[in-house]
Amino acid sequence: MELTILGSNSAVPIFDRHPSAQVLAVGNHLFLIDCGEGTQMQMMYHKVRYHRITHVFISHLHGDHYFGLIGLLFTMHLQGRTQEIHLFGQQELMDTIELQFRLSATELRYNLIFHPIRHFNSQIIFEDEQVKVKTVILNHRIPCTGFVFIEKPESGKLVIEKLKAYNVPVELYHRIKEGESYITETGEEIPSSVFCLPPPDARQYAYCSDTLYSESIIPEIQNVDLLYHEATFMDDMAHRAETTFHSTTRQAAAIAAKAGVKKLIIGHFSSRYRNLEPLLAEAQEIFLNTDLAIEGRKWKV
Amino acid sequence: MELTILGSNSAVPIFDRHPSAQVLAVGNHLFLIDCGEGTQMQMMYHKVRYHRITHVFISHLHGDHYFGLIGLLFTMHLQGRTQEIHLFGQQELMDTIELQFRLSATELRYNLIFHPIRHFNSQIIFEDEQVKVKTVILNHRIPCTGFVFIEKPESGKLVIEKLKAYNVPVELYHRIKEGESYITETGEEIPSSVFCLPPPDARQYAYCSDTLYSESIIPEIQNVDLLYHEATFMDDMAHRAETTFHSTTRQAAAIAAKAGVKKLIIGHFSSRYRNLEPLLAEAQEIFLNTDLAIEGRKWKV
Repeated sequence: MELTILGSNSAVPIFDRHPSAQVLAVGNHLFLIDCGEGTQMQMMYHKVRYHRITHVFISHLHGDHYFGLIGLLFTMHLQGRTQEIHLFGQQELMDTIELQFRLSATELRYNLIFHPIRHFNSQIIFEDEQVKVKTVILNHRIPCTGFVFIEKPESGKLVIEKLKAYNVPVELYHRIKEGESYITETGEEIPSSVFCLPPPDARQYAYCSDTLYSESIIPEIQNVDLLYHEATFMDDMAHRAETTFHSTTRQAAAIAAKAGVKKLIIGHFSSRYRNLEPLLAEAQEIFLNTDLAIEGRKWKV
Repeated sequence: MELTILGSNSAVPIFDRHPSAQVLAVGNHLFLIDCGEGTQMQMMYHKVRYHRITHVFISHLHGDHYFGLIGLLFTMHLQGRTQEIHLFGQQELMDTIELQFRLSATELRYNLIFHPIRHFNSQIIFEDEQVKVKTVILNHRIPCTGFVFIEKPESGKLVIEKLKAYNVPVELYHRIKEGESYITETGEEIPSSVFCLPPPDARQYAYCSDTLYSESIIPEIQNVDLLYHEATFMDDMAHRAETTFHSTTRQAAAIAAKAGVKKLIIGHFSSRYRNLEPLLAEAQEIFLNTDLAIEGRKWKV
């Protein structure tokens, strides 16, 4: 998996920082996660090939998380896209999209398949052979969900010496790798695990923006490799964070520590901060392996 | 009047060119004319103080002319604007704005006063002491209006020698300048024109985007000082222009020539043109005093 940040400012674009948007390359997919105003320009600037996007996930209906979506969908249409696109978000998201298509008398050339998100409990909203996506219920002023992207592990590696020791025919290697037992000529059943190393752990990326400090999300993001957690404010603005349903740097770091994640990225910065280094320093006091969500930066999981 | 171009590409942002948007400073007003995606970022980049905007005019509901409006209105709200703002556009524009405010549970801190535009005939949609705005009915795939901005002339200059010759009391100068006659001590009525030079011509700027070549607009834009007319395509794409309800460079220039305007700006360029100089050359073959709508450029009227 590879994550690219396209925008990580909160609310208002400023200091050449843009509203929330990021892309996650996983398996054959390119996932777009939130899509603030100007995301299509940011994609051009950072050389993200937006025609490759297959699925779009919108966390909630504050404008800094979705105002760029309608323009991107139109651009795809105008540039002749025919491949379907899957859109995940609150039910009302599709109302605004459909209204704006209707007003411009546009009949999309591609199939836009909408998947409404229920925000009452964490759910698996997408799954194929390569990846699984589940929601995380966040605590914001309006219904808001985070997402955990779980790349399914490849099956464990075969150990050829073991296969040869049991005279396993080559044509069965594939099935044993998939987990089937081997039945010897004498009828003995040898489990797959005799021939295979255990599969690697599933790689996981969790996106949590926007939210109050909320320990209830910890079970959903436990041990993920990479966590993006909003940190709109510094610690001295904890009261303001609470009244606006946002988090502070220390709160984001505390969640990362308690959930045992491997790395934390903080973002969704308030426009009051021109210099972001103090936010990073504050988060690192609690969770050392923290990065800033700088636009254009990439993380491999 | 001073015009600043913020975006002049058609449909899709490309080559660091942005969708349609421009601001016109006139009298005490700052008018925003169309507002494609990213307009608020363009304003920051080109140092347009968007808190000064008093009126917004949206020509039609294709996304490249209004997708940036909702974000701008939100930013004004978040930055604490309390001054009212007047919005002119097709009735359905307000439907999309209201829906998106509702979904984000936003109660605007300022008064957004909507003025629906009727697109059946040219109408005066705004008038105060300094400026008058009338619509121009364009011919596009969906209802679309241009706008003519008419700066009202100051009254003519008083000629002091004439006033003294008639012994006009100084306290009456102001009323004579406003057009009142002077009654002499013997009861004779002397018209204002005896004391005043004729007022300067009204300065006019006309915005015409998007439209088929249409001579029916000529009476509405006759003799304006500055005309912005779309020129999406070069002449060899005249058929494509016709089927998409757009104009070519030569057609824009022909309208400028036939309407006797003083200067023409062409814009709304197709994304197929990286280099715009050939478009300018083609228009100038028919109307020499033509400029390209380059972003950040300003014109004084």
